[in-house]
Amino acid sequence: MGITLGPNQYGKAETRVVRVNRHGDHHEIKDLNVSVALSGEMTAVHLTGDNAAVLPTDTQKNTVFAFAREHGIASAEAFGLLLARHFVRSQPTVHRARVSVEEYAWDRIPVTGHSFVRRGQEVRTARVAHDGERTHVVSGLRDLTVLNSAGSEFWGFLKDEYTTLPETRDRILATVVNAEWRHTDLGTAWDTSYGTVRGLLLEAFAGTHSLSLQQTLYAMGRRVLEECPSICEVRLSMPNKHHFAVDLEAFGLDNPNEVFHAADRPYGLIEGSVLRDDVPAAEEAWW
Amino acid sequence: MGITLGPNQYGKAETRVVRVNRHGDHHEIKDLNVSVALSGEMTAVHLTGDNAAVLPTDTQKNTVFAFAREHGIASAEAFGLLLARHFVRSQPTVHRARVSVEEYAWDRIPVTGHSFVRRGQEVRTARVAHDGERTHVVSGLRDLTVLNSAGSEFWGFLKDEYTTLPETRDRILATVVNAEWRHTDLGTAWDTSYGTVRGLLLEAFAGTHSLSLQQTLYAMGRRVLEECPSICEVRLSMPNKHHFAVDLEAFGLDNPNEVFHAADRPYGLIEGSVLRDDVPAAEEAWW
Amino acid sequence: MGITLGPNQYGKAETRVVRVNRHGDHHEIKDLNVSVALSGEMTAVHLTGDNAAVLPTDTQKNTVFAFAREHGIASAEAFGLLLARHFVRSQPTVHRARVSVEEYAWDRIPVTGHSFVRRGQEVRTARVAHDGERTHVVSGLRDLTVLNSAGSEFWGFLKDEYTTLPETRDRILATVVNAEWRHTDLGTAWDTSYGTVRGLLLEAFAGTHSLSLQQTLYAMGRRVLEECPSICEVRLSMPNKHHFAVDLEAFGLDNPNEVFHAADRPYGLIEGSVLRDDVPAAEEAWW
Amino acid sequence: MGITLGPNQYGKAETRVVRVNRHGDHHEIKDLNVSVALSGEMTAVHLTGDNAAVLPTDTQKNTVFAFAREHGIASAEAFGLLLARHFVRSQPTVHRARVSVEEYAWDRIPVTGHSFVRRGQEVRTARVAHDGERTHVVSGLRDLTVLNSAGSEFWGFLKDEYTTLPETRDRILATVVNAEWRHTDLGTAWDTSYGTVRGLLLEAFAGTHSLSLQQTLYAMGRRVLEECPSICEVRLSMPNKHHFAVDLEAFGLDNPNEVFHAADRPYGLIEGSVLRDDVPAAEEAWW
Repeated sequence: MGITLGPNQYGKAETRVVRVNRHGDHHEIKDLNVSVALSGEMTAVHLTGDNAAVLPTDTQKNTVFAFAREHGIASAEAFGLLLARHFVRSQPTVHRARVSVEEYAWDRIPVTGHSFVRRGQEVRTARVAHDGERTHVVSGLRDLTVLNSAGSEFWGFLKDEYTTLPETRDRILATVVNAEWRHTDLGTAWDTSYGTVRGLLLEAFAGTHSLSLQQTLYAMGRRVLEECPSICEVRLSMPNKHHFAVDLEAFGLDNPNEVFHAADRPYGLIEGSVLRDDVPAAEEAWW
Repeated sequence: MGITLGPNQYGKAETRVVRVNRHGDHHEIKDLNVSVALSGEMTAVHLTGDNAAVLPTDTQKNTVFAFAREHGIASAEAFGLLLARHFVRSQPTVHRARVSVEEYAWDRIPVTGHSFVRRGQEVRTARVAHDGERTHVVSGLRDLTVLNSAGSEFWGFLKDEYTTLPETRDRILATVVNAEWRHTDLGTAWDTSYGTVRGLLLEAFAGTHSLSLQQTLYAMGRRVLEECPSICEVRLSMPNKHHFAVDLEAFGLDNPNEVFHAADRPYGLIEGSVLRDDVPAAEEAWW
Repeated sequence: MGITLGPNQYGKAETRVVRVNRHGDHHEIKDLNVSVALSGEMTAVHLTGDNAAVLPTDTQKNTVFAFAREHGIASAEAFGLLLARHFVRSQPTVHRARVSVEEYAWDRIPVTGHSFVRRGQEVRTARVAHDGERTHVVSGLRDLTVLNSAGSEFWGFLKDEYTTLPETRDRILATVVNAEWRHTDLGTAWDTSYGTVRGLLLEAFAGTHSLSLQQTLYAMGRRVLEECPSICEVRLSMPNKHHFAVDLEAFGLDNPNEVFHAADRPYGLIEGSVLRDDVPAAEEAWW
Repeated sequence: MGITLGPNQYGKAETRVVRVNRHGDHHEIKDLNVSVALSGEMTAVHLTGDNAAVLPTDTQKNTVFAFAREHGIASAEAFGLLLARHFVRSQPTVHRARVSVEEYAWDRIPVTGHSFVRRGQEVRTARVAHDGERTHVVSGLRDLTVLNSAGSEFWGFLKDEYTTLPETRDRILATVVNAEWRHTDLGTAWDTSYGTVRGLLLEAFAGTHSLSLQQTLYAMGRRVLEECPSICEVRLSMPNKHHFAVDLEAFGLDNPNEVFHAADRPYGLIEGSVLRDDVPAAEEAWW
């Protein structure tokens, strides 16, 4: 019996880089939060503290800033690809790089060419994994809060001795969409693709008459796969943000599904993936 | 020498009420977070625990929900006025009511008439104070994040032995607008007024060539007062969200104000108010 | 009618300074979050952007670090006093300084003299206000979470048409203590005083058979004033963190106050102050 | 080519249950946040919204409360085992249950037998996975913040064209320990075991002269495995909370590692696992 080192990675997390492109008075900005994680020949550093194979996380941060200057930031995905390939190519001890990016969107304030207001809805995400041979790109979004005030039912479920929930044919369905989708084409037009997928997710959420949040989740993932041939897998995590119709009978009032209490905790949590059945799994794309 | 009770208030905080208005398949929603604070004849409850003058906070919560059904939610301010007056009018032991409201905005998903996506920029706020005679309404917003990538300088400041900051004629100016404004007209069209003020704040932020964040703050408040005759006071709290140009010289790269590090802490914090000089102060409107 | 500048202040917020004192292998650490706010001759900067009276917030940050080296950090209050007096004394344009400090406590890991684990209960606070003549010190704490599982009742309250809450003779009383207390003696032994007040607050919370949270709040403030002659005012803000006994009847189970749901929102919020009646008010100490 | 449902699970997250055990005036409390996730025959609900195989998340919540009454809460792990086995055993459509628990610790206020103050350091965690045959228990903690003000070096690392970090023989090492460990013995005395592991993690952090945070991480995991025969795997995620010595030279001051700036972002993030080499992997224990 022995004790041994298992899977491990290290890197600089949450480097907050803002890139301004200046076309005269007309500016464009990219606002990213970049996290790098590297793995490879890291046994010595764990067992003896020998850092000879370790590229400092400070260097990784410097690289993020320098690459923003040298290469610009075409998109979250493109920037992640540049960085991931750089770390693996330039350091023999680094066998795998994962770059995770959050992007914050800004809208223009139409007064100058250099004034912006942060959009504030969802955070766009991207993760790139590269091991010298294979490269994976997963795009995503989180914190996109949506609500249907009609078109949602929940009935016909299992009942046991702890079940008290009444069936309903009309409830509010509210959730926070957290979604990621894996690409098979590394030449995707990333920004266009993002807008397309985001739109499809919203449309499918709104357009699905829902008998359960699982059904809505699956419909959202399926819609993306149907419309986007170069996306092969969608993973969704969606809390059921309960809106309880308030019982107002004690006050002589009815409540025909008009007044709701938006509850915090507990909440349902629905997690699922939708896949193409002819594309090999690639679990390594996701961590 | 004696020990005595000083100023005090109590109430139910953060009742999360969502109101759906149904016009056939076309729905409208109002999504509020309502906090009530009452004060009055509360010496006995503090000194002896005698609750005879205390309207339970649970009752306050019920009232929020019942009023949403009975009266609807015309606007954050109108709903706050209804509630504040109710508590003072209906309970002799309650001499003053303050109702604070946060409102979360939703946009339509243009697929059905009942599908919405949360806007996610600023949170709209309102506070109403009523003491049986006087009534004050303060509207506001918070968490509106804005950025100018040009048109901002900072120089000519005081220098002492601890000053190392270089002067600059070109920096990023980024802040989070937290603003509140006091009304003199209780008949204001609240939603229209809100949109107007929000637009003025953004315009003034973008349109002011800034020599200091204080100057921008003052220009924003002044613009609101100039355009809105029934607003008499604007209070602003704006962090200076530092964006530091990264020194890339060590990597053989220049940085003509293109690559920035968005820092977390510390940050500058600028707080100020802009007033009409002919309107009496009303500190009680603000707490 | 004119538009004019009202009250204002500015400064560097949240400078995170950690000071290590080394006595050979035995170290001591102070871990602070320091916020400075200055006011004075600031009309020009607001109206025209003239920064001649403005000590940059960057300089304020530098001063925090330099003072930590030059003077050490004897306590949150003592460090705040040094800084506040420095800014007013050294800059004629600065008429008032407020220094707010958060302190995070660390316990030793008894393996070396230089290993620590963050205590993680309450955050200690201090605020110092100095205007060249008068100086105020307010100490405090926040986020100290406490609970009594017996000894709490709530009955005999007002009932109106929206009241449904049943009376109770046995409930859980849970709250998060946020307290601040004003000193009349600037020569106080700050760390000793802090420990004393913290202990009194806990004792009074635990030792008061409570008929309302207001009664408990007042008892806590009164206890501090009774035991600490050089404290003249205590302000408390305490949410009523509701723990609802779960109704298990549908499952054939009773619930003799053993199983509770700890709710998030809404919550009661009780705010009050306890004063000595022979000490003049000093509102300027608190902002 | 077809589109198909991939891995999925659903359940009620974050049920906040507090259990009071009364021994006369001497009370004990358990304060948990329980999340359940079930999976099994869930194709129909995703594809067509047929809920016949779905035990509502509301029922899961009720079960948590009812079990707290019926069985008490012996420990986070024991409670998770009860729940996970119940869901799989009682519902044929449920093939796998995962129960995740957070536990918040309370200390006594030594005034009564029923008064408590929340400890506020780390959150204790447990996760139980059960699929009808195999059962896995993983215990853990998160948010345990620790710091060594001596005994930490970092040098001898890789240098490339983006490296500017100087080597150091004396730095502050601060991190937030997030650790989980997998048990091979389901009859473990869970509370005793937790205290043991927590103590070992602190001792190894403090007692390791560190040449890199990776070395410290590995030493912490190894120590747990060496001392606890029925633990087979430890996973650690530890941010390197950078404390930068402030350069005070501009102010005529040296800084012999006494004054530090505690930075927020970016931060290093070190993740790794330590394993027994003779125990089969069980990835299903962790999600």
